[in-house]
Amino acid sequence: MVAPLHPRQRLLMGPGPSTVPARILQALSAPTLGHLDPQYIGYMDETCELMRQVFRTENKLTFPVSGTGMAGMETVLVNLLEPGDEAIVCINGVFGGRMKDNMQRCGATVHSVEVPWGETFTKDQLGEAIERHPKAKMIGIVHAETSTGAHQDLTGLGDMAHDAGMLLAVDAVTSLGGHEVAVDDWGIDAIYSGTQKCLSCPPGLSPVSFSPRALEAMEARETPVRSWYLDVSMLKNYYTGGGGRAYHHTAPINMVYALREALAIVVEEGLENRIARHAEMHQLLRAGLEKLGLSYIPQHSLYTLNCVSVPEGIDEAAIRGRLLNDYDLEIGGGLGVFAGKAWRIGLMGESAQRKHVLTLLAALEDCLP
Amino acid sequence: MVAPLHPRQRLLMGPGPSTVPARILQALSAPTLGHLDPQYIGYMDETCELMRQVFRTENKLTFPVSGTGMAGMETVLVNLLEPGDEAIVCINGVFGGRMKDNMQRCGATVHSVEVPWGETFTKDQLGEAIERHPKAKMIGIVHAETSTGAHQDLTGLGDMAHDAGMLLAVDAVTSLGGHEVAVDDWGIDAIYSGTQKCLSCPPGLSPVSFSPRALEAMEARETPVRSWYLDVSMLKNYYTGGGGRAYHHTAPINMVYALREALAIVVEEGLENRIARHAEMHQLLRAGLEKLGLSYIPQHSLYTLNCVSVPEGIDEAAIRGRLLNDYDLEIGGGLGVFAGKAWRIGLMGESAQRKHVLTLLAALEDCLP
Repeated sequence: MVAPLHPRQRLLMGPGPSTVPARILQALSAPTLGHLDPQYIGYMDETCELMRQVFRTENKLTFPVSGTGMAGMETVLVNLLEPGDEAIVCINGVFGGRMKDNMQRCGATVHSVEVPWGETFTKDQLGEAIERHPKAKMIGIVHAETSTGAHQDLTGLGDMAHDAGMLLAVDAVTSLGGHEVAVDDWGIDAIYSGTQKCLSCPPGLSPVSFSPRALEAMEARETPVRSWYLDVSMLKNYYTGGGGRAYHHTAPINMVYALREALAIVVEEGLENRIARHAEMHQLLRAGLEKLGLSYIPQHSLYTLNCVSVPEGIDEAAIRGRLLNDYDLEIGGGLGVFAGKAWRIGLMGESAQRKHVLTLLAALEDCLP
Repeated sequence: MVAPLHPRQRLLMGPGPSTVPARILQALSAPTLGHLDPQYIGYMDETCELMRQVFRTENKLTFPVSGTGMAGMETVLVNLLEPGDEAIVCINGVFGGRMKDNMQRCGATVHSVEVPWGETFTKDQLGEAIERHPKAKMIGIVHAETSTGAHQDLTGLGDMAHDAGMLLAVDAVTSLGGHEVAVDDWGIDAIYSGTQKCLSCPPGLSPVSFSPRALEAMEARETPVRSWYLDVSMLKNYYTGGGGRAYHHTAPINMVYALREALAIVVEEGLENRIARHAEMHQLLRAGLEKLGLSYIPQHSLYTLNCVSVPEGIDEAAIRGRLLNDYDLEIGGGLGVFAGKAWRIGLMGESAQRKHVLTLLAALEDCLP
């Protein structure tokens, strides 16, 4: 016999998932409808409309990919790139590197621009990269580098890309719902995020949005999309109503309920209020961490992901283990070049509250030698 | 403001999703853990072990793909096929056709064997196909054709494929948990299913399993897998513990809780009892439908999906609409060549109960002219 399921109530302050509020878990467990049921189609349409509000876009093609954030990355890249294409990718951490790997699997020739992990790209560096590779079809960049906590300024980049005839593709996995993400104002052509970060929904879906310019590029493809599951030319009939809601795959019904509820919470709080709350909690955490002698790795830190150096001589995994076991509190370790050298503390959605920040600081102080 | 979420309590007797029992919805809404939390890793390992029992396999590489059933299809094909490969696909409905499309996107040269929709393949036909295409690396076939209700006998096919040096890949989306599926005894090398059919779990995950022979084939690849998200060479570290549970993507935690509970229910009932229940409910439904003058399309019908012809002069969509609106009862329409001409009635997991079969028959009698 299988033991009953009793997951502990953890306070999730790592790089994601973040703590999921009861209201969203309740929506998640509402009765399952069929994926072509008119009531479900109504909920799905509302979900897409809420996504447009949170992405700040009018893009018709805005929908939740039936997979986690990395499925959103693949959806963006596999639909926009094909063999023979060139692409530029900006790498300053794990997730830029993944974009590159994924672009190559689409058959594209990829030009990397790199700065050290933790740093961000200046407008000049981005302009030079675009100038150096004029035949690129796309420039891909990470808005919120979850591996380093670096916050990339994206203003102006859309115009630079469009002036050179390129598309701008953005990873907003750790920023959507916690930082400003202005898809239309910033001229973003394709963007992907995750549900389990600043939306505080369980993992399992990836909100994506494509501009009309991106749609044109997809329609001009010469080869079929390499993925059947993520082929937007088929998915768009279901999500935007063309072709009579043609069945492609069975949508993850209950996860869409949860995402709809998570987005409703964002809209009720108000995007600006929500971003201000994340900023404020970041300041509170930052002051506390620095008081404990911990220093931030990136110069431009995200509110939502706080990456600090582990002081020398400290076994970072042991401290994380104590936080988890004695306080039911999860924070993250370093990734890639920062493995063993950094902690990553998430302030995302439900987790970005004064009570949680103070708990974390007190527990951390208790654990540090 | 967004209206509260109140999905109706539907009785789901279409081609899936099936009705989800309260026990599984409750597991789905348990507190979210981190994807590297030791408690979660424990639940995930148990889930994979339960999947082995239900698939009747010892395959170490047995895990839930983080997407719906069609993501499982893509996982199987994109990892086993690469440009230059040949593959045989058996088509007798929508899902064989999808396999072909997906194989082609992997860069393989595909040889189709076809019989009319609703029919199944004889051993002789399969043997001839294997003989005709001796260089094929794989033969792909659908065990339970959800579009026609046809039940393909798979016994002996594994040996035939292996004798010719081929892998056997099987779509078991609509059979796992409702029909016998004996991965090891039948010599299946790669198989995919869905959670929302005979496991009565919400849609969102795809149980897959790969034989050691399939693993060898993956290791002998000459090109990278075309999908980053579904690349088993990276996924296997997380799911089977190699490489220290290396992070690849954030697993859909709550969906895994639900799948674990769904599989626990299967194991508690006992696979044989469960299959016998599906057989018995199929006989009950069949007798009732035939009494209403409805005849089955396939000669070899699945227990789990019952595809009947709509009598001439009847507006099939109107009847389905009445069942949904007046009885909160969902059945499916025809797909592909059977669109407008067939009904598809699912008897899957929780929905395969005497009370539900009798309700459906009574409601259908009420609606028929």
